[in-house]
Amino acid sequence: MTEPQFPRGDDLPIGGTALQRRLAEAAVELFYAHGATATTVRDITGACGLTPGALYNHFSSKEDLLYVLVRDVHLQVNEQMTAVLAEAGPEPATQLSAMVRLLVAHTAGFKKRSRVANREFTALTGARRQEVRALRRQLRDRLGATLLAGAEQGAFNLAGGNDAPSATLAAATISNMCVHISEWTLEHYPPGIPDLQERFDVMALRIAGARPA
Amino acid sequence: MTEPQFPRGDDLPIGGTALQRRLAEAAVELFYAHGATATTVRDITGACGLTPGALYNHFSSKEDLLYVLVRDVHLQVNEQMTAVLAEAGPEPATQLSAMVRLLVAHTAGFKKRSRVANREFTALTGARRQEVRALRRQLRDRLGATLLAGAEQGAFNLAGGNDAPSATLAAATISNMCVHISEWTLEHYPPGIPDLQERFDVMALRIAGARPA
Repeated sequence: MTEPQFPRGDDLPIGGTALQRRLAEAAVELFYAHGATATTVRDITGACGLTPGALYNHFSSKEDLLYVLVRDVHLQVNEQMTAVLAEAGPEPATQLSAMVRLLVAHTAGFKKRSRVANREFTALTGARRQEVRALRRQLRDRLGATLLAGAEQGAFNLAGGNDAPSATLAAATISNMCVHISEWTLEHYPPGIPDLQERFDVMALRIAGARPA
Repeated sequence: MTEPQFPRGDDLPIGGTALQRRLAEAAVELFYAHGATATTVRDITGACGLTPGALYNHFSSKEDLLYVLVRDVHLQVNEQMTAVLAEAGPEPATQLSAMVRLLVAHTAGFKKRSRVANREFTALTGARRQEVRALRRQLRDRLGATLLAGAEQGAFNLAGGNDAPSATLAAATISNMCVHISEWTLEHYPPGIPDLQERFDVMALRIAGARPA
């Protein structure tokens, strides 16, 4: 398995009208470069050649636009994770590899939207933030469930013990490792995404203490 | 080794006058909670019972205060890394463990200042940002040098090959893993810092492909 396991089209997942998508694409660029807090509605609409008021025909606020973006990127990854897990079958090591390769493909293949989803969600407040945190927890819990199942079946040997807290810590570490691939790595890593997937797959299986195949 | 390997005093490393330290402590709280961009000079001085103008007797701007804070946290970690490496002796596995335990102790023991140093440095611009990036690179390069030395000596077996690019990727992964311990983990991990250090040590040695001792 050397290809990213999801459609490589670069459309944002938010859908909506053509203008909503254009606003969202401009927002990704600006949120990525300057952060959501420092970006103004005027910056976003200006990048689309619109007046500031035009945003409110499509989103109720800048935070609403950020929320829709961040939520939909997480929903997309969650949905694709369901698909790769179904394809991976019952072996925990194969499941772990599939999830890691998916996360790495997103982080490296859709660098800006991934970074916005994984960094700027902290700018959300209230129920929106809770919703995104729940989606993130869901992703981590899927990794954790696979790690715990593997530990219980003897396929993994987790750092600290083959128990739920160790599975949770390993899941948080592996998911962080995959979504926070450093800017420096992404810029200085010529071999490309399949090679990165391979290396992160190896590192994740090592963290899990996977039995050599 | 079960204790954090550095003085546990909670003083910020920036030194300076009592009022400078008070401003810096207030800034850490605010930058941690809201981000540096969203925090105003008025917020910082207000938290110290001062008028906004008072900041400029001590720092040339909010960015200057952020810069001093972030730089000094990085300098402190760099200095402590020199000390733990000197103590660790020549074995790459012992060196790697010592560096990982130091980074984990900082991230978990000084949660707010670490998070500010590792997240808010992106709000710096120009020469200040370059300087902090160079300090971060220096930390990563020390991990990378140990990983490469261990790979060349046969003590480690790096994912992807025992070469410089693999050492660099492993170094970036291990350092990210140690400084981005999730908020969730830090809040839900009752066993405490020595236990976390132990587990991250095991995970880092696994990532490095260390020969079982």
